[in-house]
Amino acid sequence: MITTCTVERYSSDPSCGARHRRRERVDALTLSPVGVGDVSKRILLGRKLRSAQLGETLLPKRIALPVFASDALSSVAYAPDEVFIMLAIAGASAYVWSWKIAIAVALVMAAVIASYRQTVHAYPSGGGDYEVATVNLGRTAGTTVASALLIDYVLTVAVSISSGAQYAAAAIPAFLDHEVIVAVVMVVLLTAMNLRGIRESGSFFAVPTYLFMFAILGMCLYAFIQMATGTLPDVESASLEIAADEGWEQPLTTIGLLFLLARAFSSGCAALTGVEAISNGVPAFQRPKSKNAATTLLLLGMIAITMMVSVIVLARQMGLKYVDPHDIHKLTRNGEALPEDYDQHTVIAQIARAVFIDFSPGFYFVVTVTGVILVLAANTAFNGFPVLGSILAKDGYAPRALGSRGDRLAYSNGIVFLAVLAIAFIVAFGAETTKLIQLYIVGVFVSFNLSQLGMIRHWTRALASERDPAERRRMFNARAINAIGLTFTAVVLVVVLITKFLAGAWITILAMGFFFVVMRGIKGHYNSVEIELAADETDKALPTRVHALVLVSKLHKPTLRALAFAKATRPNSLEGVYVSVDNAETARLMEEWDERNLGVPLKVLHSPYREVVKPIVEYASAIRGANPRSVVAVYIPEYVVGRWWEQLLHNQTALRLKGRLLFTPGVMVTSVPYQLRSSQLAREREEREEARVRPGDLRRGRTEDKDRQVQ
Amino acid sequence: MITTCTVERYSSDPSCGARHRRRERVDALTLSPVGVGDVSKRILLGRKLRSAQLGETLLPKRIALPVFASDALSSVAYAPDEVFIMLAIAGASAYVWSWKIAIAVALVMAAVIASYRQTVHAYPSGGGDYEVATVNLGRTAGTTVASALLIDYVLTVAVSISSGAQYAAAAIPAFLDHEVIVAVVMVVLLTAMNLRGIRESGSFFAVPTYLFMFAILGMCLYAFIQMATGTLPDVESASLEIAADEGWEQPLTTIGLLFLLARAFSSGCAALTGVEAISNGVPAFQRPKSKNAATTLLLLGMIAITMMVSVIVLARQMGLKYVDPHDIHKLTRNGEALPEDYDQHTVIAQIARAVFIDFSPGFYFVVTVTGVILVLAANTAFNGFPVLGSILAKDGYAPRALGSRGDRLAYSNGIVFLAVLAIAFIVAFGAETTKLIQLYIVGVFVSFNLSQLGMIRHWTRALASERDPAERRRMFNARAINAIGLTFTAVVLVVVLITKFLAGAWITILAMGFFFVVMRGIKGHYNSVEIELAADETDKALPTRVHALVLVSKLHKPTLRALAFAKATRPNSLEGVYVSVDNAETARLMEEWDERNLGVPLKVLHSPYREVVKPIVEYASAIRGANPRSVVAVYIPEYVVGRWWEQLLHNQTALRLKGRLLFTPGVMVTSVPYQLRSSQLAREREEREEARVRPGDLRRGRTEDKDRQVQ
Repeated sequence: MITTCTVERYSSDPSCGARHRRRERVDALTLSPVGVGDVSKRILLGRKLRSAQLGETLLPKRIALPVFASDALSSVAYAPDEVFIMLAIAGASAYVWSWKIAIAVALVMAAVIASYRQTVHAYPSGGGDYEVATVNLGRTAGTTVASALLIDYVLTVAVSISSGAQYAAAAIPAFLDHEVIVAVVMVVLLTAMNLRGIRESGSFFAVPTYLFMFAILGMCLYAFIQMATGTLPDVESASLEIAADEGWEQPLTTIGLLFLLARAFSSGCAALTGVEAISNGVPAFQRPKSKNAATTLLLLGMIAITMMVSVIVLARQMGLKYVDPHDIHKLTRNGEALPEDYDQHTVIAQIARAVFIDFSPGFYFVVTVTGVILVLAANTAFNGFPVLGSILAKDGYAPRALGSRGDRLAYSNGIVFLAVLAIAFIVAFGAETTKLIQLYIVGVFVSFNLSQLGMIRHWTRALASERDPAERRRMFNARAINAIGLTFTAVVLVVVLITKFLAGAWITILAMGFFFVVMRGIKGHYNSVEIELAADETDKALPTRVHALVLVSKLHKPTLRALAFAKATRPNSLEGVYVSVDNAETARLMEEWDERNLGVPLKVLHSPYREVVKPIVEYASAIRGANPRSVVAVYIPEYVVGRWWEQLLHNQTALRLKGRLLFTPGVMVTSVPYQLRSSQLAREREEREEARVRPGDLRRGRTEDKDRQVQ
Repeated sequence: MITTCTVERYSSDPSCGARHRRRERVDALTLSPVGVGDVSKRILLGRKLRSAQLGETLLPKRIALPVFASDALSSVAYAPDEVFIMLAIAGASAYVWSWKIAIAVALVMAAVIASYRQTVHAYPSGGGDYEVATVNLGRTAGTTVASALLIDYVLTVAVSISSGAQYAAAAIPAFLDHEVIVAVVMVVLLTAMNLRGIRESGSFFAVPTYLFMFAILGMCLYAFIQMATGTLPDVESASLEIAADEGWEQPLTTIGLLFLLARAFSSGCAALTGVEAISNGVPAFQRPKSKNAATTLLLLGMIAITMMVSVIVLARQMGLKYVDPHDIHKLTRNGEALPEDYDQHTVIAQIARAVFIDFSPGFYFVVTVTGVILVLAANTAFNGFPVLGSILAKDGYAPRALGSRGDRLAYSNGIVFLAVLAIAFIVAFGAETTKLIQLYIVGVFVSFNLSQLGMIRHWTRALASERDPAERRRMFNARAINAIGLTFTAVVLVVVLITKFLAGAWITILAMGFFFVVMRGIKGHYNSVEIELAADETDKALPTRVHALVLVSKLHKPTLRALAFAKATRPNSLEGVYVSVDNAETARLMEEWDERNLGVPLKVLHSPYREVVKPIVEYASAIRGANPRSVVAVYIPEYVVGRWWEQLLHNQTALRLKGRLLFTPGVMVTSVPYQLRSSQLAREREEREEARVRPGDLRRGRTEDKDRQVQ
């Protein structure tokens, strides 16, 4: 834990005052610097004690599944709806294709899941698509994936919450037609929770996710039993007809049909969003990490496919008619328009209402857990966003502060940024899931594609050096799986681009371009700074003299402490510096200075115009100018207070002075803090803040106290 | 300029490396500390050179008059209107009293001017009413005056700008009925100008103020000539009748009449607002300061009285009928109501229109300069507010940062605070001068009264020790003048309180109470901090050891510089401290560290959860804990960048670390800045900012470059 490279020891021999310099090369393990050895042990011990509390809490599969699955599973709440909406363009007759589209989506999902199982084995570090693309395809591909993921997180929030608002409206009629406000309020609440530091624990995810699985799978099972016994009821919209869109009334041409199916299929692929989450969370799994992650992924895929296919098949069997909420007029009953106040409920809500016609708690249960899982899915974006931010920060694509844990400000800014963008999308698109979906899928499939391509390159490279036939066979197979995955996702991406570009995908691509440019700009800036800062041999020159100035405003404890600290550093010259704005006060201070016999000269700088900062900066620069090889050390006594309004009353001038002195070459600024009693408040606040959970902690396998450990 | 009290010299003898301590008592004039002597001279010289530029530019009377008079003179633009509005309550017949009220107000003004002439002689330092009250009546009275002045500045802005908006509407019909928006926009513009740093020069005031005097006095002179020749025209409202308010139609009882006259008189006293300004500006006058200030005050009084009496007499002669704009329905023509779109113009506008009936440029000239002078009057509040703030800050009643010149943030906050309050008043009272006047006068007269009372106390004290009969006679006279002044202002204050309390004065009193409590709270806080910080003998103990830690994030120039600076301070122990979050990177750094042979050990703190701040704070506390008499010096290399977005990309962790280390006792934090090329931008920006004029500079006799010097 503690490594000592070289030690240079300065020791003052008190008997004669002579100064020795001894340079010694020491073993890294045997010595710590003088006087710190005992401390090192203490810290080691302290750390050891703490590690029980602060250790990694690795997730077993049964907890990891809900933690990472809520996003992927929740898409079953809106993906079937989108399939039916798209098919409805050609009228209800096109619904015959619904189960075939479900199968196609399921196939793509199976291929993607199989691909990601390769990824979690090959890249167990949790870098996910971004890492795969960066390592195998280069930084441009990596940045592209990162841009796609950033916009994905925003749209995950927007889509999930918009869909959640629809479910809320299904259960609570008062919310109908106020979905935008409901959605915005939900995002604001989520943001507040995440800013506050939500306790994201295993059970926080496990309970609602398992309840959701139980609700949907249970409902489907019950419905299939009814179907087998011939008692499957119709949904409320079964008696309606759908008028085809203009131009779609005629029997479809082959091209027309293909385009229709392509649109429905690409909308259905919304079901795939979120399956990549596990590839970012491998480090949080119990050992063997990769194997467990791959198994969980398989489970997730099976459950998601089952749910989606079941819902679509059941909806079709139960006679569902579902159109874009904007085109509600296309629904007619016996050729007549529906009443003005007709509310079209989501597919799952309609199925639940029909299946549980005699048991309304069943309906409310299904709708409620679906709403909850959608909010949970949105929350995963709040957790994933900082994780991605910290990875990008480490690579220099995001402000570096995002990279260190516990930078409250950086985290908060990220969360607020995410929330503001999500709210902007929700408001701009009227909280309509259907419209937002058009934007959503593009980003997801861009990263799928680049990730699969990266994996193929990965295996090809690995094969180049691998000689073991069994291992080579395994790699060949893996590459084949990824190639199949790529084929499927590439087809989907092309279909999505063709069918969705004008419907909103262009916005996503524009936003990705924006993020791409900003990330490149940040990287470029860091690079140029690095070049400017690169160490060369000229920087080893040691300053010859240290001139210490202690800022004096009054002769009180903080000043005396600063003087004592400055003296302790034994500078070549030491002065108190006082800016005089009032003669009487200056005379008083000088008298007191003399009386106290401090043994330090006091320099009085007269400033008739009550400027404080400028005279000091000029004096420091002048000293430095006269001795260019010296360094001027300015000691500023500071009060440390605890309340925000106390901050306004103190240290403002010190703060400004420090800001100005930073621009003065050869000057270093030392704050000598003096803790006032009220500072205890702020200290305790800081400590509480530090102990707080940060979004994304859990999915990095990091928990901080025992009661959150999951066994 | 530079005073050296005591010198304690540390000199290292290089030949034997022995350390001597010599303590010597030196003459304040002959010695500066070692190695700084030459610098001191240079600074002295530098100062001398600069003083030609940065010197005081004292104002001759002809410039001082417009600088300080705009507020007082501008009240002639609304005070007569208020007199007529109040008299109109009893119908136009009450207008016979108008010139008597004008005389009464003129008398009070004469008495107040005479009183303030005493003040400028006795208190030439520019403290004004606040200083007089504090010195003679104690801190409670002083704080009360300060509260009154604070609310006065707010209302000066609100009243002047509201009245200005009325004049703007008289000249530009499009502004009619949009006075609130016009007024708010004007306040926002003024605020922006003052935030930006408006060049408040003598000519800035002189031109419009003299034009205003010329316009009003010229107009009145011309009108009086017309009157003498019997050709004085009637104003536009001469043909109207005024319906008396309910309950005022009958011939008035004596009490009723007295009450009416009292209300009109107290409204007319709005003409007195602003006369105290000169007493705050004595230091800006050319020598002999007090005498010149007193003469200027006399001039101001004579001009203001002449203007006000002339306007009221003329208005009466020209048959003006003027009512509260809210009660416009009380105006009738031949018993019939006026058309819906009738606009009542201000008194001066009506006179100007009538007098210059054949010469419309004359009308527009009068109205325009009146509008300009009102904006100028509002601007004086923006200039006076920071001056008052700095005086209060010096006494501990306001945040201390307000006390040092050039604290942009503090100044800006003050200006924004003033503007926000003024806008609140303007909006709350619909930009109606009449309503705002009710609030205005109370504050003004509270400070008048306390100031006169303080002056009487001042002379009484002075008489107690004065023996020279001539001087005693002079003091007796001065006291008599102040006593007369007090009598008059006390009567006005009582009248104002009785007649205006429910009409709005209570709001002023409430606001004064609020400011009073806040200022007392700030003072109390500073006092308790001062007690907590008072130096005692225990603070002289010198730390025995200095443990220096240099924060290492990379091995680049800033780190090398920080290491060099830290080494130059020759601490008892010196270590580089590196927080390791990534093993590969750590290994690379350690290798480079070894290669460079820096002669400083590197301590690596492992932080698997990417926390940076916490391990360092814990390590520093642990070192200090092990050696309680030592001090830990933490050196933080900092990049200095120039653009705001670069700030976001750098130093965020350093900033947070510094914040946290301030709470750790026995630790001092040293920033070692490394100026990147782009920092030049920020430096230039800072210098531009410093060179900028601050509101209130001129009235403190302070200008910064030659072209603004007024001869």
